[in-house]
Amino acid sequence: MTQGIRVPGGITTPKGYRAGGVAAGVKRSGRPDLAIVLSDRDACAAGVFTTNLVKAAPVLMGMETILARPSAIRGILTVSGTANALTGAEGIEDNRSVLSAAESEFGLPAGSLLPACTGVIGTRIPVDRVVRAMPSLHGSLAIGPEGGEPAAHAILTTDTRTKQAAVRVRLHDGVVVKVGGMAKGSGMVAPKLAPPHATTLAFLTTDARASPGSLGTILNRGIESSFNMVTVDGDTSTNDTVYLLANGAAGGEPADRDPAFAEAVYSVLLSLARQVARDGEGATKLLTVKVTGARSVADARLAARAVAGSMLVKAALFGADPNVGRLAAALGYSGARLDPNRLDILLERPRGALPLITGGRPARQLENGGGMRVRDILRQLDEVPITIRLHEGSGRATAWGCDLSYAYVQINAAYRT
Amino acid sequence: MTQGIRVPGGITTPKGYRAGGVAAGVKRSGRPDLAIVLSDRDACAAGVFTTNLVKAAPVLMGMETILARPSAIRGILTVSGTANALTGAEGIEDNRSVLSAAESEFGLPAGSLLPACTGVIGTRIPVDRVVRAMPSLHGSLAIGPEGGEPAAHAILTTDTRTKQAAVRVRLHDGVVVKVGGMAKGSGMVAPKLAPPHATTLAFLTTDARASPGSLGTILNRGIESSFNMVTVDGDTSTNDTVYLLANGAAGGEPADRDPAFAEAVYSVLLSLARQVARDGEGATKLLTVKVTGARSVADARLAARAVAGSMLVKAALFGADPNVGRLAAALGYSGARLDPNRLDILLERPRGALPLITGGRPARQLENGGGMRVRDILRQLDEVPITIRLHEGSGRATAWGCDLSYAYVQINAAYRT
Repeated sequence: MTQGIRVPGGITTPKGYRAGGVAAGVKRSGRPDLAIVLSDRDACAAGVFTTNLVKAAPVLMGMETILARPSAIRGILTVSGTANALTGAEGIEDNRSVLSAAESEFGLPAGSLLPACTGVIGTRIPVDRVVRAMPSLHGSLAIGPEGGEPAAHAILTTDTRTKQAAVRVRLHDGVVVKVGGMAKGSGMVAPKLAPPHATTLAFLTTDARASPGSLGTILNRGIESSFNMVTVDGDTSTNDTVYLLANGAAGGEPADRDPAFAEAVYSVLLSLARQVARDGEGATKLLTVKVTGARSVADARLAARAVAGSMLVKAALFGADPNVGRLAAALGYSGARLDPNRLDILLERPRGALPLITGGRPARQLENGGGMRVRDILRQLDEVPITIRLHEGSGRATAWGCDLSYAYVQINAAYRT
Repeated sequence: MTQGIRVPGGITTPKGYRAGGVAAGVKRSGRPDLAIVLSDRDACAAGVFTTNLVKAAPVLMGMETILARPSAIRGILTVSGTANALTGAEGIEDNRSVLSAAESEFGLPAGSLLPACTGVIGTRIPVDRVVRAMPSLHGSLAIGPEGGEPAAHAILTTDTRTKQAAVRVRLHDGVVVKVGGMAKGSGMVAPKLAPPHATTLAFLTTDARASPGSLGTILNRGIESSFNMVTVDGDTSTNDTVYLLANGAAGGEPADRDPAFAEAVYSVLLSLARQVARDGEGATKLLTVKVTGARSVADARLAARAVAGSMLVKAALFGADPNVGRLAAALGYSGARLDPNRLDILLERPRGALPLITGGRPARQLENGGGMRVRDILRQLDEVPITIRLHEGSGRATAWGCDLSYAYVQINAAYRT
């Protein structure tokens, strides 16, 4: 399979896309809160959405728009600082107003923009302020990073950094296509979702040619092993949305069945998902949990997500406490089939793995309160890569999470006010 | 139904029980870590145990003992400060040694004591120290609170207070029986368990006459609506154990089918479960979530547990932040069937409930960042009673949880060392 090559950039790296972002006054802080991504021609679109029964207005509208015109999408308008959830019919009306204003400002057909919102549940969009900001949003529109950067900033809430990724790949017909993306995450990031369900906000663009149906399949498969394997706090949001637009600007044959294209999309999803985990609210460390030897892939996913999502594992990680029993306990309640006596757990290191649990028993150096060396190693790591071997079969999966810090509590005890 | 009456006391309140507790040197802190509860005659016993596949040695042994001699149990020996989990065959051997030493010290038949442990996973029992402490444990044995209090202290780990409860009830044949109990909780306390599965450690005694089979049924039913509805951190322990002993010392007819007896057992379980939730690691507030109008009891339980267990709800509660959208989001991903537009959520108050969400929309005073009054009310409450009405049917359930504080992170970032 042709391997895609990582390139700098994001949502505006593929041909035919522009983006922009400004502060419209939705956030009291005055930070950017209105973002647009535009394709210069009709794009095919696929989307995956939260499984939460309480769905925000933009989620309901995004689902409807993709069903109604899957091959005639022109872009995505994001308002951050309000979730526009629990807002009833007025919430739909508000979102329609700001989409219409944008479509009119940018000279687009009615109904060609996809919506997204992120922020506090139960607050409405300040429609007047957002509509008044349209000319300034128009002014911010640019190609390349000049447009992509401000857009990537404007979709953030409690994130501490932007999340962007781009890949270039040569397809089987020799045409080079690009896939780019941006995401926001931080809180209300949760596992236990199955396609067509997503977490957080992530938008991908590509200049490849593809049909909406195959885009949907590629996106669903990619989500399964990327965003659906990320957990920050186990809370599934009302607003989770992932969009993938394909405008065909690179020309060439349809990329639908080219595995290199699917691989490139997955590569961008994976990079964004890891960036979301790394920047979880209050996180100081990225936790990567790889499970091998499970009875099935489903078992491997259950096991990896349980460990990455355990509050006790996350708190121990924050304190660099080699309390490895908590990893075993999380595996034990994960639902994955396993024999506790055959469990191996290792900490991966550049010069070889360090055993933490071997054959269901703590490694010798950790017995009865030992482990100062492991503690010192953990302290120095920004990324903690754990490998778990179940010795039950050939199922494999990887999950990503982060530690649980004082800052998580601080951010979420007073996020709203 | 005859209502049981709450009386002061705990595990030694029913007739024929003595208890004691001492420091054997398992905990480095020097705090009490060895507890015994003894019946002066053979007792029938029932037990419920963790569903975690990684089961501690005392859990495996407790299950076996109850199966082997359900009508000839003489007591419970608890070691706190070590979980004796992930300790393989040696862990079983260690536990057998300390049980034998106790049986010999107290002149009991071999195999008549039930074991329990709680503490760090992956550490073994310091057998020599525990065996050496037996005479001192014997010396601490006493009836009434003089024995019950030290025992209730010695089973604790990160708990900040003992958890005890006792009830007196007159059965249909006129005989008065008592039910008493003690528990420990604090961390690794999780929902999503079904009988015969428990959380935390809780031991109940009664002087009623009952058969092991019916004791088991009464205990399983009681657990469903008490301990299985408590969540502190969503982590299911390797050591969860609930034991119920009935020694018949009060005389009278078998209490097996007397609903007043089952009600008295439930009443003690409920009191202990609430005490465990209230004393969750780092907790400053008890959260009580009552769900009514669910399609089924199972739906009501899912909904209540999701709200009580949501990290974002718990963090908001710690900050007294009336971020009511998080309650709705938790309901939306709980798995319970509901229509978001018919959702009512209220904060119960002595002088009448305060609406937080009405018909799926934030109450007027909470719209667009309001709610200083609700914040002031939340700040002053030690116990936050939330009622959720789904308007879908007649299923009801209550769950208990606590807030998520800086102290939770602190305790769990450095619990082990």
